[in-house]
Amino acid sequence: MPSQERRQITGFSNPTIKRLRSLREKKHRKREGHFLAEGLRILTEALEAGKTPKLLVVVEGAELHPLARDLEAATFADGGEVIETSEAIIGKLTGKSNPQSIVGIYADHPVALADLDRDRSGIWLVAQALRDPGNLGTILRTGDAVGAGGLILIDDCVDPFSVEAVRASMGAIFTQQIAQASWPEFLAWLRAGEGQLVGASLNTDKDYQSVRYEAPTFLLIGNEAQGLPEAYEQDCDLLVKMPMMGKADSLNAAIASAVMAYEVLNQRRTS
Amino acid sequence: MPSQERRQITGFSNPTIKRLRSLREKKHRKREGHFLAEGLRILTEALEAGKTPKLLVVVEGAELHPLARDLEAATFADGGEVIETSEAIIGKLTGKSNPQSIVGIYADHPVALADLDRDRSGIWLVAQALRDPGNLGTILRTGDAVGAGGLILIDDCVDPFSVEAVRASMGAIFTQQIAQASWPEFLAWLRAGEGQLVGASLNTDKDYQSVRYEAPTFLLIGNEAQGLPEAYEQDCDLLVKMPMMGKADSLNAAIASAVMAYEVLNQRRTS
Repeated sequence: MPSQERRQITGFSNPTIKRLRSLREKKHRKREGHFLAEGLRILTEALEAGKTPKLLVVVEGAELHPLARDLEAATFADGGEVIETSEAIIGKLTGKSNPQSIVGIYADHPVALADLDRDRSGIWLVAQALRDPGNLGTILRTGDAVGAGGLILIDDCVDPFSVEAVRASMGAIFTQQIAQASWPEFLAWLRAGEGQLVGASLNTDKDYQSVRYEAPTFLLIGNEAQGLPEAYEQDCDLLVKMPMMGKADSLNAAIASAVMAYEVLNQRRTS
Repeated sequence: MPSQERRQITGFSNPTIKRLRSLREKKHRKREGHFLAEGLRILTEALEAGKTPKLLVVVEGAELHPLARDLEAATFADGGEVIETSEAIIGKLTGKSNPQSIVGIYADHPVALADLDRDRSGIWLVAQALRDPGNLGTILRTGDAVGAGGLILIDDCVDPFSVEAVRASMGAIFTQQIAQASWPEFLAWLRAGEGQLVGASLNTDKDYQSVRYEAPTFLLIGNEAQGLPEAYEQDCDLLVKMPMMGKADSLNAAIASAVMAYEVLNQRRTS
């Protein structure tokens, strides 16, 4: 039977602390297959989605919030480990100067494209060469809100399991399926079944509200600076544009995907 | 006649460089009434909006992009100064490890509430106690896209002229009017004229698409973690909620304001 007792760690140089800190870097996350999430709200979302931490880190000497006690119990019950340590060390783990006082280490959970169940939802988000972890996390969060099936990452996107992306996802990292693929891999998978591929583009006059979207709809958003490659746009079933009344003629990538996703959701709600 | 020659700076300890670096801090921005913007795209948006830098910083020895030459000419023509320095020093100014190679210093331009012309637009964005500079900048950028008149900041919001907010605004810091006010000041101003105050809230069942918005519409978004104070919600003409199909029941503040703003814009486009 696994231990039900917390382990105390007092030193910055403790090997477990060093290992946890290393999870801030992508190469270590990849090697270990684990990632780091922080904050009671996000960890509680994880628990509600059925994900328990392999390792839970709490502040020593503090009285735990009832939700944190639930997390501790679930971690022990699932055979995980609970560590208590100083707030200063937790601050080192999260890289924040005002750290929240609970951290969980989870198994990452990328899904192979072949294992995605496209009938799970009528809306899927697809991002290409997304660079900003805050944008990626925000897109996951929006995906959760609109009931999307998940997020498919094309080409060289920022790591969805980075601390910043996990934080911006506000827990949606645990509820959205996440797959990664090259463009040819994605297209081959997409065309083997039902699905309308819709690209957000400035290279069209077709208004995003003039179209009836067909389920499952795959909403494709391009890189923050360059937008979609022209060749990818040509592979889309449809290119649409949101109205832009201003000087700049562009939207943040996470904003564009949300405005599009809500249009698809609204059409389904009212039809 | 002012100088038309660039000044060379080679040392990190140069007083001008120190002054520029200090503009990364709010207290120095307030004292000087200046802020820092970076990158050819944002500086060019500024120029198109009629804003020239007081001081332009370019990389020494590099051939300038034609748009950067336009910026230099406009800076000189407006009596400003142009400095050339190393890429390493520009990196110190912007706080980025991979700095873009042009920086401008601009006069900040907060607008007094009394000087806002509410008839300038049918959509205004209002944010309360917004904490994240990326959210604030993104909201400005969205405001530009939907043709909003500007952004009114209530209570203790993050500084719109911070480097991070300016960057996220992608130039909208130069096209959107920005006012700051307490809630009583804002309400007094609002009620002295036309205007529908609409709050995004979880404390209502009224769907955001079930309402006809009246111009000018003031869209109010609350703090990222807490949402709107209950007393502020009671002052609204209307509370609305976006549908949320997921587990988390919340949206990023910048996403929520964009989805609402596009609904208002779409109603106006189709009516």
